[in-house]
Amino acid sequence: MIRCAIVGASGYTGLELVKLLLTHPHFEIAYLFGSSEDRIERIYPALRGVFEQEILPTDIELAASCDLVFLALPHKSAMEVAKPLLELGVKVVDLSADYRLKLENYEAFYTTHTDKEHLKNAVYGLPELFRQEIHKAQLVANPGCYPTATLLALAPFAPFIERDTPLVIDAKSGVSGAGKKCKETTHFVQIDENHFAYTPITHRHSIEIKEKLEILRQEPLEVIFVPHLLPVDRGMLVDCYIQLQSALNPVELLKDFYANEPFVRIVEEPARIKNVAGTHFCDIYAQAKGKVIYLSSAIDNLLRGASSQAVANANLLMGLPEETGLPKIAYVP
Amino acid sequence: MIRCAIVGASGYTGLELVKLLLTHPHFEIAYLFGSSEDRIERIYPALRGVFEQEILPTDIELAASCDLVFLALPHKSAMEVAKPLLELGVKVVDLSADYRLKLENYEAFYTTHTDKEHLKNAVYGLPELFRQEIHKAQLVANPGCYPTATLLALAPFAPFIERDTPLVIDAKSGVSGAGKKCKETTHFVQIDENHFAYTPITHRHSIEIKEKLEILRQEPLEVIFVPHLLPVDRGMLVDCYIQLQSALNPVELLKDFYANEPFVRIVEEPARIKNVAGTHFCDIYAQAKGKVIYLSSAIDNLLRGASSQAVANANLLMGLPEETGLPKIAYVP
Amino acid sequence: MIRCAIVGASGYTGLELVKLLLTHPHFEIAYLFGSSEDRIERIYPALRGVFEQEILPTDIELAASCDLVFLALPHKSAMEVAKPLLELGVKVVDLSADYRLKLENYEAFYTTHTDKEHLKNAVYGLPELFRQEIHKAQLVANPGCYPTATLLALAPFAPFIERDTPLVIDAKSGVSGAGKKCKETTHFVQIDENHFAYTPITHRHSIEIKEKLEILRQEPLEVIFVPHLLPVDRGMLVDCYIQLQSALNPVELLKDFYANEPFVRIVEEPARIKNVAGTHFCDIYAQAKGKVIYLSSAIDNLLRGASSQAVANANLLMGLPEETGLPKIAYVP
Amino acid sequence: MIRCAIVGASGYTGLELVKLLLTHPHFEIAYLFGSSEDRIERIYPALRGVFEQEILPTDIELAASCDLVFLALPHKSAMEVAKPLLELGVKVVDLSADYRLKLENYEAFYTTHTDKEHLKNAVYGLPELFRQEIHKAQLVANPGCYPTATLLALAPFAPFIERDTPLVIDAKSGVSGAGKKCKETTHFVQIDENHFAYTPITHRHSIEIKEKLEILRQEPLEVIFVPHLLPVDRGMLVDCYIQLQSALNPVELLKDFYANEPFVRIVEEPARIKNVAGTHFCDIYAQAKGKVIYLSSAIDNLLRGASSQAVANANLLMGLPEETGLPKIAYVP
Repeated sequence: MIRCAIVGASGYTGLELVKLLLTHPHFEIAYLFGSSEDRIERIYPALRGVFEQEILPTDIELAASCDLVFLALPHKSAMEVAKPLLELGVKVVDLSADYRLKLENYEAFYTTHTDKEHLKNAVYGLPELFRQEIHKAQLVANPGCYPTATLLALAPFAPFIERDTPLVIDAKSGVSGAGKKCKETTHFVQIDENHFAYTPITHRHSIEIKEKLEILRQEPLEVIFVPHLLPVDRGMLVDCYIQLQSALNPVELLKDFYANEPFVRIVEEPARIKNVAGTHFCDIYAQAKGKVIYLSSAIDNLLRGASSQAVANANLLMGLPEETGLPKIAYVP
Repeated sequence: MIRCAIVGASGYTGLELVKLLLTHPHFEIAYLFGSSEDRIERIYPALRGVFEQEILPTDIELAASCDLVFLALPHKSAMEVAKPLLELGVKVVDLSADYRLKLENYEAFYTTHTDKEHLKNAVYGLPELFRQEIHKAQLVANPGCYPTATLLALAPFAPFIERDTPLVIDAKSGVSGAGKKCKETTHFVQIDENHFAYTPITHRHSIEIKEKLEILRQEPLEVIFVPHLLPVDRGMLVDCYIQLQSALNPVELLKDFYANEPFVRIVEEPARIKNVAGTHFCDIYAQAKGKVIYLSSAIDNLLRGASSQAVANANLLMGLPEETGLPKIAYVP
Repeated sequence: MIRCAIVGASGYTGLELVKLLLTHPHFEIAYLFGSSEDRIERIYPALRGVFEQEILPTDIELAASCDLVFLALPHKSAMEVAKPLLELGVKVVDLSADYRLKLENYEAFYTTHTDKEHLKNAVYGLPELFRQEIHKAQLVANPGCYPTATLLALAPFAPFIERDTPLVIDAKSGVSGAGKKCKETTHFVQIDENHFAYTPITHRHSIEIKEKLEILRQEPLEVIFVPHLLPVDRGMLVDCYIQLQSALNPVELLKDFYANEPFVRIVEEPARIKNVAGTHFCDIYAQAKGKVIYLSSAIDNLLRGASSQAVANANLLMGLPEETGLPKIAYVP
Repeated sequence: MIRCAIVGASGYTGLELVKLLLTHPHFEIAYLFGSSEDRIERIYPALRGVFEQEILPTDIELAASCDLVFLALPHKSAMEVAKPLLELGVKVVDLSADYRLKLENYEAFYTTHTDKEHLKNAVYGLPELFRQEIHKAQLVANPGCYPTATLLALAPFAPFIERDTPLVIDAKSGVSGAGKKCKETTHFVQIDENHFAYTPITHRHSIEIKEKLEILRQEPLEVIFVPHLLPVDRGMLVDCYIQLQSALNPVELLKDFYANEPFVRIVEEPARIKNVAGTHFCDIYAQAKGKVIYLSSAIDNLLRGASSQAVANANLLMGLPEETGLPKIAYVP
């Protein structure tokens, strides 16, 4: 068994990592670390009788004794832990934003980077697009939830996009994406029977989407990204509106592009959150009107948008088949 | 008191009309008509002890004895009732699509029109845009819910839109918009914890939006309209993404355009459904990025998107101040 | 116009008081007080363009210049403000628990009472049961939400209850009852798709129910009260299971008891939250099996369970008809 | 591999059986039968790429070629299929009510029984209480969802209950329990922001609870059972209020009774639906006040209340360890 540590185990993505590793045939949880210093089954009583373990104060040496470390920490905290671990030779999957962007983009949208050296060698962990690089990496930067759903939908179209028309990305996320902390935008009464955008155009995931699309396109592109909160627990729907240089059949393009990808489904009806919640799937729907393409892309924000993608990356890092232990059966009905 | 009849009283917009007329200082409910032939308080027990009345089988003569008739019927049924009523000289506010569109658009998207004569003289009942015409009309075609929220957001920008870039309209509605009938898309288990688009690009409201925008613009425009279902009862959010010929301050433009309109609020944070649910308000938010404008517009789909707008139109038809009896106090929290 | 102040205007019951007073024909809002020192329309943007006013730091003298003061404060804070106001001769409706209970019960379940003198003369503000006393009072203690729904259902049965069998009260409340503060039990992800009891048997409202029932019965009674949180914003359902000394027709008893009460409806189907949300109504359903009676009672927790009941009490205090300004039209559908 | 058929595959419990069998190490799905005659992945698109199979018209011979048949049919239809299958020697787990009750109770609450012979030998499939009998059976009657949660909570107390006081059972279910059919009580607008009881006292599950408790107690008992609908998809909370002959520690009693049961958890906080949704667990909480015991019991209505319990019974029928393939990891957060 491959011994893993989870740093930041008490948050929602930490919990999802725990749940995934419990049924993974080759990974075992050696340590849980976090600031809570409690027991995981006390924080999440659903785990009583299933998995009970202490959450230890983060300990680099103990963590470095494992084969692989998952970092489920906020940005900035993540690189502080990643740096010494990487220096000790451990493989790291980082779920934060700390290693996702080029230095100038990171510092413009987040904060000063304190581990520029490892940033250079970090690989962006979207397996369908960067599988070969992930295989050879020591450090994988797990993509953000919005970028995952968006990039999987847009990647096949990158070469064909009309440069002068901005890409419109209207995204909707369940509240678990806002984290476990109690605040105005997680208060039930603010969310229930409500719907609204937040940080339109300026949300930090817009630079992540733009940077990666420009890598695929090899040219600057304009991105208008507006995220919204949905009154649901988990799941995410991203609608994209793009203009192409010339008309093409978007469904055929998608089917060709993802012909050998078992976790991307090109669907015949507009994508629905509930068909993917609980799974690693990304469902993509496309419809054309002349040169305009409408795309809708659905994922589970905590799984494909975070923890199951982290496991997919960990599988690749450790030389296992990518699909090992990835969930396929949705929570429906 | 002005005597009113409601035809189609048992549906949700019929119920909202009943509720509005109960507190209206100048209108009284003379008759409720419908196919249910039941009592309104048996269909909606919330009305027990408040308003109890029989729903009669639709009777043109009885209806024509009123000063004003509201038609809360499906399209096609509406024009069959409107035609004889109009010939008898009654004033009519029709909540269906039957008189909203030019003949060729109606017949292309709905069905054969059986009352072409009155269609010619029908006025589109969006008071902020067509107030003078409504004043003088006999027949008002009450706008659809999506077109109401969309057109109020886009109207001020119509002269400035870049013609060659399609307008992107990503709209989200509460389930009450799907009506009282039990079907797959109103089943709780299909909607709860779910979110998805339906009839993308081809929804019938897209032609209504396009036709009215082209009247304002005096030129053809391309509209990409995608409606979604939200797991909420009532309320609607419409997000628009448009490109202008040159940059301008969208908030100033909106504030100028709606300076004297008490029921359009230009808001400082992205519009939220819950701030308007229960009211006749339309909240509009705008943000620019270069020549691209992002707009979000929130209304109560059953009130501003149907029944309170019908009352506003009825007020204008009968020479009353437009705001008479219109709800301003939201259901919050 | 009767000039009113609201102390504690920024909470949910404060907001509901504002909304009710805005449409009340005889009350006007002179001052809003609170700890927020903000503007009410900034805290609740739904009020923009409807009612905009500063929230002042609580000022006893200013408040005492009004005819009537509503206290929408937590317990303990309420009596600190009530005491000087009462000494200055102002009429007070207190929505907290501070004046609801006998001294010994209050101090056993809450804290040391710092205004024992006024406590003696406080009247319990459940109009259907204590209308005459409220009329003559200076200080009304507005009942708790759970006690309101419970006592209205049980009062008619008090003389007939089998003493030796405990009354079982299984109560379910919307989350707005937990207040505006962000905490674990108001986090969307904790409440959505969930349901659970809290503080079973020991909740403070159990002593309020017990004390008042014993006044009606003139004998000790045993109460088992278990409150639950429902994934809804507002509304409350209370189910009671009682055993009588001998069988009787519960519906007839209820109909007789409430024959002249316009805001208590004895309903033919089990009570539903949605039929009363937005109103001052209490809907009660009853069904017998031998000597056992099952009762379900539904109210809007923020209106009949707090703010509209406070207005009813204020009406009585000021010599107005009790029903003045009380909401009757539910939010349905 | 043990070959299984599912009759009634298109309903929610059929879907859950499919999902459970897909990950079961010893069962395989040989046939899906049903009236829909469609493909399972078309009815539930979440299964695309995971499990795709035709639903055949029910065929007794084909079904009888399997080792085990699950019947996920309505009552009455179930016994029509069970009878010939049993005569052909197949093992059957029936999820309907057809074989749960004594003949006189069945015919009083349901309909005429058309397979009295097999009814005599049917075993009630609540493993914690009737494990030995299930082992030896050919036909297992899978319990109802409400009886499962109720009986697991009450069984340990059966010998100690005060006979003359009725047992009060206040139960709340998610809407998936009402099935896939579109009807008034599954319409989103009727359920959302609502809560209410249905068929109080007279619901058919009350006789199932009473009959089984009386077997455990060997004496007649009075049961007052009131089910409610909750605005959640799945999960069920049952609150019981019972009076004992003398005081005892309910937590100790429960812990002793279920000491060796891995799927019953005696919990320290009132049971929560979300801690069990997605699993086979039943969480039970108990609190005493004198001789009165309050119990709350939470299960997933579609799993422990139907399909995972059916798999547990199937495991016992086929001589496998009971826990094989039963889900333990909840859907949280």
